Amino acid sequence: MLGKLLLTGAAGGVGKALRPLLPRIAQTVLLSDINDIQDVAVHESFRRCDLGDRHAVDELVDGVDGIIHLGGISVEKSFDLILNGNIVGVYNLFEAARHHGKPRIIFASSNHVVGYYRRDQYLDSTAVPRPDSLYGVSKAFGENMASFYFDKFGQECLSVRIGSCFPKPANPRMLATWLHVEDLLDLCARAFEAPRLGHTIIYGASGNDETWWDNRHAAFLGWKPKHSSAQWRAEVLAEAGAQDPKDPAVIYQGGAFVTIGHPSDEA
Amino acid sequence: MLGKLLLTGAAGGVGKALRPLLPRIAQTVLLSDINDIQDVAVHESFRRCDLGDRHAVDELVDGVDGIIHLGGISVEKSFDLILNGNIVGVYNLFEAARHHGKPRIIFASSNHVVGYYRRDQYLDSTAVPRPDSLYGVSKAFGENMASFYFDKFGQECLSVRIGSCFPKPANPRMLATWLHVEDLLDLCARAFEAPRLGHTIIYGASGNDETWWDNRHAAFLGWKPKHSSAQWRAEVLAEAGAQDPKDPAVIYQGGAFVTIGHPSDEA
Amino acid sequence: MLGKLLLTGAAGGVGKALRPLLPRIAQTVLLSDINDIQDVAVHESFRRCDLGDRHAVDELVDGVDGIIHLGGISVEKSFDLILNGNIVGVYNLFEAARHHGKPRIIFASSNHVVGYYRRDQYLDSTAVPRPDSLYGVSKAFGENMASFYFDKFGQECLSVRIGSCFPKPANPRMLATWLHVEDLLDLCARAFEAPRLGHTIIYGASGNDETWWDNRHAAFLGWKPKHSSAQWRAEVLAEAGAQDPKDPAVIYQGGAFVTIGHPSDEA
Amino acid sequence: MLGKLLLTGAAGGVGKALRPLLPRIAQTVLLSDINDIQDVAVHESFRRCDLGDRHAVDELVDGVDGIIHLGGISVEKSFDLILNGNIVGVYNLFEAARHHGKPRIIFASSNHVVGYYRRDQYLDSTAVPRPDSLYGVSKAFGENMASFYFDKFGQECLSVRIGSCFPKPANPRMLATWLHVEDLLDLCARAFEAPRLGHTIIYGASGNDETWWDNRHAAFLGWKPKHSSAQWRAEVLAEAGAQDPKDPAVIYQGGAFVTIGHPSDEA
Amino acid sequence: MLGKLLLTGAAGGVGKALRPLLPRIAQTVLLSDINDIQDVAVHESFRRCDLGDRHAVDELVDGVDGIIHLGGISVEKSFDLILNGNIVGVYNLFEAARHHGKPRIIFASSNHVVGYYRRDQYLDSTAVPRPDSLYGVSKAFGENMASFYFDKFGQECLSVRIGSCFPKPANPRMLATWLHVEDLLDLCARAFEAPRLGHTIIYGASGNDETWWDNRHAAFLGWKPKHSSAQWRAEVLAEAGAQDPKDPAVIYQGGAFVTIGHPSDEA
Amino acid sequence: MLGKLLLTGAAGGVGKALRPLLPRIAQTVLLSDINDIQDVAVHESFRRCDLGDRHAVDELVDGVDGIIHLGGISVEKSFDLILNGNIVGVYNLFEAARHHGKPRIIFASSNHVVGYYRRDQYLDSTAVPRPDSLYGVSKAFGENMASFYFDKFGQECLSVRIGSCFPKPANPRMLATWLHVEDLLDLCARAFEAPRLGHTIIYGASGNDETWWDNRHAAFLGWKPKHSSAQWRAEVLAEAGAQDPKDPAVIYQGGAFVTIGHPSDEA
Repeated sequence: MLGKLLLTGAAGGVGKALRPLLPRIAQTVLLSDINDIQDVAVHESFRRCDLGDRHAVDELVDGVDGIIHLGGISVEKSFDLILNGNIVGVYNLFEAARHHGKPRIIFASSNHVVGYYRRDQYLDSTAVPRPDSLYGVSKAFGENMASFYFDKFGQECLSVRIGSCFPKPANPRMLATWLHVEDLLDLCARAFEAPRLGHTIIYGASGNDETWWDNRHAAFLGWKPKHSSAQWRAEVLAEAGAQDPKDPAVIYQGGAFVTIGHPSDEA
Repeated sequence: MLGKLLLTGAAGGVGKALRPLLPRIAQTVLLSDINDIQDVAVHESFRRCDLGDRHAVDELVDGVDGIIHLGGISVEKSFDLILNGNIVGVYNLFEAARHHGKPRIIFASSNHVVGYYRRDQYLDSTAVPRPDSLYGVSKAFGENMASFYFDKFGQECLSVRIGSCFPKPANPRMLATWLHVEDLLDLCARAFEAPRLGHTIIYGASGNDETWWDNRHAAFLGWKPKHSSAQWRAEVLAEAGAQDPKDPAVIYQGGAFVTIGHPSDEA
Repeated sequence: MLGKLLLTGAAGGVGKALRPLLPRIAQTVLLSDINDIQDVAVHESFRRCDLGDRHAVDELVDGVDGIIHLGGISVEKSFDLILNGNIVGVYNLFEAARHHGKPRIIFASSNHVVGYYRRDQYLDSTAVPRPDSLYGVSKAFGENMASFYFDKFGQECLSVRIGSCFPKPANPRMLATWLHVEDLLDLCARAFEAPRLGHTIIYGASGNDETWWDNRHAAFLGWKPKHSSAQWRAEVLAEAGAQDPKDPAVIYQGGAFVTIGHPSDEA
Repeated sequence: MLGKLLLTGAAGGVGKALRPLLPRIAQTVLLSDINDIQDVAVHESFRRCDLGDRHAVDELVDGVDGIIHLGGISVEKSFDLILNGNIVGVYNLFEAARHHGKPRIIFASSNHVVGYYRRDQYLDSTAVPRPDSLYGVSKAFGENMASFYFDKFGQECLSVRIGSCFPKPANPRMLATWLHVEDLLDLCARAFEAPRLGHTIIYGASGNDETWWDNRHAAFLGWKPKHSSAQWRAEVLAEAGAQDPKDPAVIYQGGAFVTIGHPSDEA
Repeated sequence: MLGKLLLTGAAGGVGKALRPLLPRIAQTVLLSDINDIQDVAVHESFRRCDLGDRHAVDELVDGVDGIIHLGGISVEKSFDLILNGNIVGVYNLFEAARHHGKPRIIFASSNHVVGYYRRDQYLDSTAVPRPDSLYGVSKAFGENMASFYFDKFGQECLSVRIGSCFPKPANPRMLATWLHVEDLLDLCARAFEAPRLGHTIIYGASGNDETWWDNRHAAFLGWKPKHSSAQWRAEVLAEAGAQDPKDPAVIYQGGAFVTIGHPSDEA
Repeated sequence: MLGKLLLTGAAGGVGKALRPLLPRIAQTVLLSDINDIQDVAVHESFRRCDLGDRHAVDELVDGVDGIIHLGGISVEKSFDLILNGNIVGVYNLFEAARHHGKPRIIFASSNHVVGYYRRDQYLDSTAVPRPDSLYGVSKAFGENMASFYFDKFGQECLSVRIGSCFPKPANPRMLATWLHVEDLLDLCARAFEAPRLGHTIIYGASGNDETWWDNRHAAFLGWKPKHSSAQWRAEVLAEAGAQDPKDPAVIYQGGAFVTIGHPSDEA
């Protein structure tokens, strides 16, 4: 069990879902976000932080025993926002960790790193990135930074290409990508407990029937998701109705990310 | 759920076993075979059809919402029979489907497409065909036709390399190849429900302990067989007695197909 | 050196180009075609033959020491024509060879077996077929028949996925696919001379700079093409002008075969 | 069920654990070891044997229907000891089997054949050996001897790269390598019952959550371990405390074998 | 031949070497750099540009027919410098190209994207990045951006993982990594002339005897380097003297990049 | 250039051929063999040595700067002979090298390590050994010993799977396996000069047209054979006459080794 765990992006959707479970793996939790958090529990503390602020991030990381890094931009946004949160922010985080005893990092990467593979392509963690968005490009950047910090400095990290971490699958695509937050918590626990983590990439999906991803290269972690999207399958398919097999958002793993407009074309 | 499903080869062994289960996936079922069928249920209709008759096949397919194509020759036979049923017949079926709205096709391919691999070779769907018979060659032809019709015309198809779809495994080979008809039905349902099917090749075996086949490239379908040959294993092995490990019928996946005589040498 | 060599399809383009070179590998050459041939040389004889005529093919093969099988349909045509020449015809040829001492067969397969791969996909002979035409499907059928006849009967065969066997490359695509007829002759010689041929698949292109194909699995044959399309490159590119990188005929290996209409839609 | 089974190394740890289970697969068991065994059961007999004694081994094997070969040195030892037990001994055993009807052999190979792979490398049975000890080198020798005896003489053998066959996992490494003796027994049973065994390499670990090994190439055996180290995980991790991720004994699969001194440097 | 070619980073080492050769592939060349260039030839023009200035880059790209993008930081530097030149700069360039007719881009990536592979590991372009520096991370970012812009917008790009583009190899490492500037020019020409480029990754080394890289996935380009480091081999080895095989700078492909200090630790 | 080079097996065929070339890579050469050598040149010295004699081997290796280890048994022989020369001898050599400054070792392994692959299987150095003889098993043992000594002790070694090192190819098999002694010398030179050698496996054949082996994993060495069997091809094929493609000695890479009797069956 960790002493003090840092959770960045604590005010976001995944952060909110994960917070109640964290006492299972850490004694105290330092929450951080660019937005305010009011409902701080006894075992928690909160510190607002812009990840783009190198000094602030350095202070944030000082003294923690492990990091779950959900912070930054988590959908497609303008390059400037992504640059600050996901590029500069990731560099700041790894630098801070390097300076403060190299606590292990769980890095929230994304399936959008490989969003331009078709859904009938079965990928393991050695697939060449095919990002579907500036967001996906920034997450690949984070993985590469993690790779470099491990190879050069021994900073250990688990890059989790999170699928869809929601209470329940909302559409047919999520039947494959859905990740129950308890499975995510188990994965974090495994990563903190492993004798050695190195830099490992893993796809973050529950034990769904439909799957596009093969985590065999992370089999040493022993992660066995306990949840599955199967119970919602009939309901989800019925609600969704027929899908167009020629729609790029149906063909590709990235779903709607491959059909949305480009951020710089808006406004 | 499909409206009208076409089942070809409905009078054959697999067809008979599948018919009672089809109401789970379709409202009405059009049965077809070169032989007569008498016991037509309320939700069923029957139309005799020689698959080699282009015009008849075109009429057969008109108006259906999905096709399970079991029709044609299903064991080693003379080239002329195979030519009519499995070569001309398959072309006729894909042409008819192309002309009539491209209903999805479940194509009954066969493990005999890869019958000349040894049983200790673990195959996925990208293995180069090594057919063990004229029958196996004709099934590879059907898969290639399906590939072409998808790439060029968008006609979707699941090619199922069926193992042994019988009530129970009858010999040691079937401990690996056995396919429970309910698992086959589930697979058909998955293929009709998938947002996109493309042209996918899958091995049709239940969740048997012994296995030679890896369906990971079709993992997006989410098919999880529920049955297994394990309950009959002791009985099957006892009945079979010792097998000769140097017998080609024991060495190769195709079993007795690799040792039977050639059709043109008979008569 | 072979005694009597059978050349089918001798009246076609490749056949005509190959004939003057055949004395290098055989003492006498039996020419065959569905069309007449007038200019028969001293070392040659001619026998007209419809490959769809089983009896005629059996007589044709009787007494030959090796076969170069260029016969059949060599472009996209109606299914009926392809059925006769490339399906029934291939079966007839392998049956005849099996009955008459199993002379080695060089089978003219085609790059159109894999025409639906992109040009930036580098293929070896284990690539799953993705035919671009009925013609391509029929050539894959021939390869599968060859595989079966070797595995079951020991009939040896080289399946050559011929690129573009013309006097010179006629367009940018042929910079990669071009096959000089002397390189083809060398390949045939190698196949007849090899201590053991088995059933081997090889891509038939000269030593062009641009290439999509990897023949490493046939390296035991020691075939080293001596010609290259390089000398015509500047001329070919200049004549062709700019190409549209979004044109399927430019994207895929099959070239125009992927954009031509379907034979059954014509007339 | 086998008639007479030979168990070599019967006085060792795995041998002792396996003996009570052997009546499930054999009618009588001939125990052998270089050390004495006192507690011989009714269905058992004992014969002391130095595996380095060719004549003695020949007599030992005469008349047996199957062999579980645990004999020889099972940890790192001086080359002379390993030479006698694991090099000469293995040759003697295969020669004896060849002369006496070729009873199937279960050969106790070891994970130390691949001990210099990292734990985050996921290996199947085709991985190039990277032995971590003279012991590991000797086990690779045994596998190669088995390969040769099958290819040349048809002597069938299962080489089991045993992980850690102990009553319970004793440290974090064993969470991945642990093999319950009942799973080992099941594996032996499968190997004796298989219609054809050939020479097959398999990793011997139970169905643990953490795993480094992929047995898909032996899937035809249908072995499904029923036990798992999971129940001891919390206890084992707690007892072990923090591990140094830079310690070679933590990094590599071989564990302490990669850090122990060399036998010839001692004494 | 291109009309107007943009060369960024024209004042750097590779830029200077490449300039005299560019008339072979373009009628006019727009030079750009953050530093001044004085010796502008008749067919050249110069425009100073900070790649981090979005508006300036947009203007720079307007009207060009092709881009060779050498600009940005080309060695390990502080993150702020790399951020501006190689992260923001690359985004600006791809945005500008997208807005101005999508001229093809040759992107100067680097071998430092894979610098943490050992030299005895033979890599093709699908190897997972293992960058050895912030610089290497930034180059991987550029490749991922290129991948995204092609998949989403059809912007074509060749990412060249340049080895060592110097007049002659300066040390044993460069015997493998050396790239003659004429070979680089030929590669650029091939990329501009190809009927379709897509997004392709290629390693930029001449035809050296020693090699760590396999460009088979770019074989469709037909690039055949004409130069080799072989003529300098004896001289280079003699000058270098014995190397320490345990030195990380000798073990890894990145050479000294893996042993230099971290930019943020300096000053 | 090496100072003092040790050549074991100097009285054998390869040793004799190599001796005149060694002044190119070493100043003095210590010859060793179990047989006597009379014609010792000025730069040479001779020391008789039984490789099975640990003490003698230790003395032999003391003071040398590099080792070419051709010593031991080089054809199929009784296990006792192979045990002494190739098992005990190899261990003695690696131990001696470890004790005396770890001079690099060129280990003469053999193609008979993989002799049970078919000739139409194209192998790289990661192929699982399939030895065709006790001799082949012993050579695989040597490679594994080399792997262990590098991983544990940093002893560097090149294992050369020598094909057929004779003045000219003597039969069709040697058209693929032939190794000119100058190419072998070049390979040794490369291995001694490489900045880092590690433990590398390479196939030792000249640049023959026919080939079964792929040395890409040793591409970092930059070895480019200059000779080829091609000039003798016509002569060799003519002399050999027709070969039986069903003869195991023709099917498998090991040639006659797969059909010779077993040493223990003789006498």
